[in-house]
Amino acid sequence: MKIYKKSLAEMKKIVVRYTTQTTDLQIEKQVAEIIENVRAKGDEAVKSYEKKFDGVDLDELRISNNQLEEAYQSISPELKDALKLAEKNIKNYHEMELQHGFVDAAQPGIIRGQKVTPLERVGLYVPGGTAAYPSTILMNALPAKIAGVDEIVMVTPPQKDGIAPAVLAAAKIAGVTAVYQIGGAQAIAALAYGTESVPRVNKIVGPGNIFVATAKKQVFGQVAIDMVAGPSEIGILADETATPYQLAADLLSQAEHDKRARAILITNNEELATAVSDEVEKQLAVLPRKAIAEVAIKDRGFIAIMDSVPEMFALMNEVAPEHLEVQLADPMQYLSSIRNAGSVFLGKYASEPLGDYVAGPNHVLPTGGTAKFSSPLGVYDFVKKTSFIQFSKEALQKDLKAITTLARTEGLEAHARAVESRFKGDAK
Amino acid sequence: MKIYKKSLAEMKKIVVRYTTQTTDLQIEKQVAEIIENVRAKGDEAVKSYEKKFDGVDLDELRISNNQLEEAYQSISPELKDALKLAEKNIKNYHEMELQHGFVDAAQPGIIRGQKVTPLERVGLYVPGGTAAYPSTILMNALPAKIAGVDEIVMVTPPQKDGIAPAVLAAAKIAGVTAVYQIGGAQAIAALAYGTESVPRVNKIVGPGNIFVATAKKQVFGQVAIDMVAGPSEIGILADETATPYQLAADLLSQAEHDKRARAILITNNEELATAVSDEVEKQLAVLPRKAIAEVAIKDRGFIAIMDSVPEMFALMNEVAPEHLEVQLADPMQYLSSIRNAGSVFLGKYASEPLGDYVAGPNHVLPTGGTAKFSSPLGVYDFVKKTSFIQFSKEALQKDLKAITTLARTEGLEAHARAVESRFKGDAK
Repeated sequence: MKIYKKSLAEMKKIVVRYTTQTTDLQIEKQVAEIIENVRAKGDEAVKSYEKKFDGVDLDELRISNNQLEEAYQSISPELKDALKLAEKNIKNYHEMELQHGFVDAAQPGIIRGQKVTPLERVGLYVPGGTAAYPSTILMNALPAKIAGVDEIVMVTPPQKDGIAPAVLAAAKIAGVTAVYQIGGAQAIAALAYGTESVPRVNKIVGPGNIFVATAKKQVFGQVAIDMVAGPSEIGILADETATPYQLAADLLSQAEHDKRARAILITNNEELATAVSDEVEKQLAVLPRKAIAEVAIKDRGFIAIMDSVPEMFALMNEVAPEHLEVQLADPMQYLSSIRNAGSVFLGKYASEPLGDYVAGPNHVLPTGGTAKFSSPLGVYDFVKKTSFIQFSKEALQKDLKAITTLARTEGLEAHARAVESRFKGDAK
Repeated sequence: MKIYKKSLAEMKKIVVRYTTQTTDLQIEKQVAEIIENVRAKGDEAVKSYEKKFDGVDLDELRISNNQLEEAYQSISPELKDALKLAEKNIKNYHEMELQHGFVDAAQPGIIRGQKVTPLERVGLYVPGGTAAYPSTILMNALPAKIAGVDEIVMVTPPQKDGIAPAVLAAAKIAGVTAVYQIGGAQAIAALAYGTESVPRVNKIVGPGNIFVATAKKQVFGQVAIDMVAGPSEIGILADETATPYQLAADLLSQAEHDKRARAILITNNEELATAVSDEVEKQLAVLPRKAIAEVAIKDRGFIAIMDSVPEMFALMNEVAPEHLEVQLADPMQYLSSIRNAGSVFLGKYASEPLGDYVAGPNHVLPTGGTAKFSSPLGVYDFVKKTSFIQFSKEALQKDLKAITTLARTEGLEAHARAVESRFKGDAK
């Protein structure tokens, strides 16, 4: 792996290079056409795109509940147990995210509050092929369930040999309402605008390739979307107490996801840097997904040697990684030093894949530096808030002058008159 | 006003027509060019666009703190008092929105939690000209302040006679860090990517015209944005206990904002419908912003007569209005019947403009049916969450089999090996 030994200022510039995003106008245009077509022609358009892009001739878009049940029965007891353990811990973690409304009646004649309401219907995108992850279904559907969403509609690209049983079993365990075997921009369009078979949803969540991400961005406003997810990332902060071959293994666990994945180690120990770099080479050699991981490590991976622990955190907060491992002595003490990260793994035994599967926190996380302003997917993504007020005549009277002054300053005479109409003599 | 007396199913179709959004590809392209130019040329590009679009030759983009102070000193005592009352109530309402992290240590050897961190720097867009609203500045900046945001950067289009003192005074009261006299898509681009004078922010909030909304949509992903705001809306549910001239006044208070504003009354009382329609005509005739309000009422306003109160709510939930007035007897009982609305005004004295100014809840609200999935602007928009976990060796051991089973099912061998590396004999 590339090893840098530069100042914090120089390293921050290198990090910025790694987070720059670009827009592909060709893809933007293609996706806009797909969306327009699905809006206009519904199922017919969706089917023709599935034939074109996935090479599958679809008769029925929906996967029957029988098929889900069969898939669930067909998976191994080990996998069933693993999915159920994940379900249990995802549930008990996400229940802590539940939000409640509030009410305030401290001022005479005034009631002010906020109510929290679940979304009615939500769409989940689950990538197909080699990226068909049952764990992702649990991570997306369970928070929506806990939020109280009525219907969860899942879409996933059709496969020539049928959708993987593990994916369908996970959909059943997660309590998904309906599964449609459609993918790509056409699936996003169907969820956003509805077709004869696919119901229109209020929000679309879940990761996807560049076509899915572009389509989500284009339907944003028509429906809500979660963040536009990019390639996986891991950032590790480590000192001399860490074990090089464990760090190397964790770096590779993200590198194997995608050629554009990002694996970064920041340390204050030069010896550790060299040892981890050597270990990465050694472990890469015997990795099934070597072809992918090697490109990620070479193109976007690096090790940075910094002078001090505060500098290590300063640089890592600039990276704002999706996953952050803190492999330092007494790691919990650094919780307040972490400003920007999706999910944090503290100490030697919190290896990143633990968080991908069974620990409980969500694995749908902000990438590409968006942890500076975005949160993990959570129960809060499946509710919305509504404020409310009720005033007595006396309470409104007290505020009357301030309201009319502001309204008239803003040139909004009808605003002032509306409030004044409450004090006309003949008002009921 | 148009009066409909149709079935719920027929009315729902009419409502859908009113919420359909369209994309203007010409504007999309123009905005993309502006953003590209500002990214490439910084201040120089921003200044040239300000000259072109706002007809103003700018030397300095930033408004000095002295100018803010002078503006504050120059406004009337009435306006100062009104702004301060608004500030006080916005603060004490939004403090109730503050969120806290959590920690869970219920399982042996396992710590799981979530921390809440304010965004570092936020951009506020404040429209110029006739839409230069001091109240909007308070509504945008105060929640960010309460969230703990370090820097609040405000942008507002330059005016030939200088920015309105009320706007600058509000910026001072709200505690804005810096004000730049730039507007349109070029201001959004400057906030998203930074220029020599304008600092790059993590999130952009605030309403704006179609160029601003399109630019916000295009920079989404690079930075976070609030919802893309459309024209104002009011929906009123009223029965025979309501007063027609008050309802008419409230409908006009939103109609005067924009020719595309939407004012809707849903009632179960035919007499009331006719009386409100007559009152709207009467009050329109003597309204300063008649030219705007008249178009809004004619093009997009309507009154619907429904058979029952449940039907009235069913239709209004389909409308999902930005502002919802419940002018029914004993209005608080209907709180649970409201599913989709930005802000709710209960009873005769909760006239909508009260909420625009001094009641406390935010007036930046979801429009165009987006209340189905979006919330009012709030303190929660200026923080982000980070999950964290710490596991003991024993706790990881318990989950080992489930993790490796799931990892290998998903074809991610490096994930399985990373966790297994914690149990190798020679691990420190």
